[in-house]
Amino acid sequence: MVCLPDMATTENRPLILVTNDDGVFAPGLRVLTEVAKKHGDVVVVAPDKPQSGMGHAVTINGILRFATVDLMEGVSAYSTTGTPVDCVKLAIFKVLNRKPDLLLSGINHGANSSINVIYSGTMSAALEGAVEGIPSVGFSSLDHSHSADLEGARHVADVVVGNMLRHGLAEGICLNVNIPACPKEQLKGIRVCRQAKAFWLDDFDHRTDPGGKDYFWLTGKFKNFDKGEDTDEFALEHQYVSVVPVHYDLTAYHAIPQLQQWEI
Amino acid sequence: MVCLPDMATTENRPLILVTNDDGVFAPGLRVLTEVAKKHGDVVVVAPDKPQSGMGHAVTINGILRFATVDLMEGVSAYSTTGTPVDCVKLAIFKVLNRKPDLLLSGINHGANSSINVIYSGTMSAALEGAVEGIPSVGFSSLDHSHSADLEGARHVADVVVGNMLRHGLAEGICLNVNIPACPKEQLKGIRVCRQAKAFWLDDFDHRTDPGGKDYFWLTGKFKNFDKGEDTDEFALEHQYVSVVPVHYDLTAYHAIPQLQQWEI
Repeated sequence: MVCLPDMATTENRPLILVTNDDGVFAPGLRVLTEVAKKHGDVVVVAPDKPQSGMGHAVTINGILRFATVDLMEGVSAYSTTGTPVDCVKLAIFKVLNRKPDLLLSGINHGANSSINVIYSGTMSAALEGAVEGIPSVGFSSLDHSHSADLEGARHVADVVVGNMLRHGLAEGICLNVNIPACPKEQLKGIRVCRQAKAFWLDDFDHRTDPGGKDYFWLTGKFKNFDKGEDTDEFALEHQYVSVVPVHYDLTAYHAIPQLQQWEI
Repeated sequence: MVCLPDMATTENRPLILVTNDDGVFAPGLRVLTEVAKKHGDVVVVAPDKPQSGMGHAVTINGILRFATVDLMEGVSAYSTTGTPVDCVKLAIFKVLNRKPDLLLSGINHGANSSINVIYSGTMSAALEGAVEGIPSVGFSSLDHSHSADLEGARHVADVVVGNMLRHGLAEGICLNVNIPACPKEQLKGIRVCRQAKAFWLDDFDHRTDPGGKDYFWLTGKFKNFDKGEDTDEFALEHQYVSVVPVHYDLTAYHAIPQLQQWEI
């Protein structure tokens, strides 16, 4: 049976959807859910397994299931077999049966700054929220570790959620918030930035399985080619939290005039 | 063993990488490969199964394999177990061992106009090409059918590839080309456009499996909310081919000043 959440619909409290890409039992999601509980009534709909690097993948040629999860008191929580974007769609159309007032994704264990925004399941969930017209934000800690100190990230999430609820967000955008891997008291502040021109120099480990067959594992080094001081990478290198407004209009408007010169 | 392509490295002929998200044996990929052969030396690296809706997913927590495929004479072709973006990375770093001069993705069986650009594996492969600094383009036919008439799309691909090779593309962008579902002679022309504000009104079919357990299948209707005459949806509705330049800088620059007013 599908279990619809027994929401504590306290009047005037916003309904907040929490999701992530590290899976419903990741420590980062627990911290974000605790922050969300301070600000509103919370429903969690998150993947039942890690879905890092899933980008904006959506399940169109297969089925989805979801199940109730015992996450923490006072929070209705569900796991799904789908991607982070599937979680957002399922949450809106089958769990909540309405759009939440806020969508929070994360706290991701690992950076989603610069080009990582396009690979990140955490950020794709937030972007899907923007597509659905929901003020949405993805949080990522630069500390990959499962046992990361997330107290700085907790504080940042609290400040950002407070501002989101007070000010809202312009239509069609969401926020990409990355938090340096340092103790809370060493954070220097929060900066609004643009996405840096920083990329992965990819490579693959070439390995042989026990049966003698080749396989490959993606690896690579991250490199910042951008000398700008207004970028997310610059802020993070200097122990500032980076906040980048992100949108889903991928049109490169500046390139249109050149293309209009083509012989088409 | 890994088979490196036995490339017919005819001097002065560009090296063209072809991929898609419908799988290496899709008719659309065959047509695009035939077009590419007219213009250069072609290597195909494409998924071994349909990967529609995979967005910018990349395999970071699992392995990849690739195998030689007998696709057509004079073309080195490989299938991989990965996503379209994985195919591009594997092609560059393990098959070709260099960046190709051009990357063509498609011809997709189904539209990738407006918001579909973010869900589309076809377009994510092209965008990954742009990230890698390769002039890249994704082609999609509005006809979903496996037996679609792709002669119009073939002609358009030929014209666009010719222009790409003559003019190149501005750094950091790729092209999203959609072709109306009509006979070639009914195409009215090619228009450079912006991405329309058109979205899916999602829903889920709620079904019960033979064991009595619930499952869900994504469905929905597509709706264009954009009245602009400069959009891809407008062009396609009027039987024009749409060409949208697409980039991977997702920063919503217009939203930065508002955020700088926040109490952070």
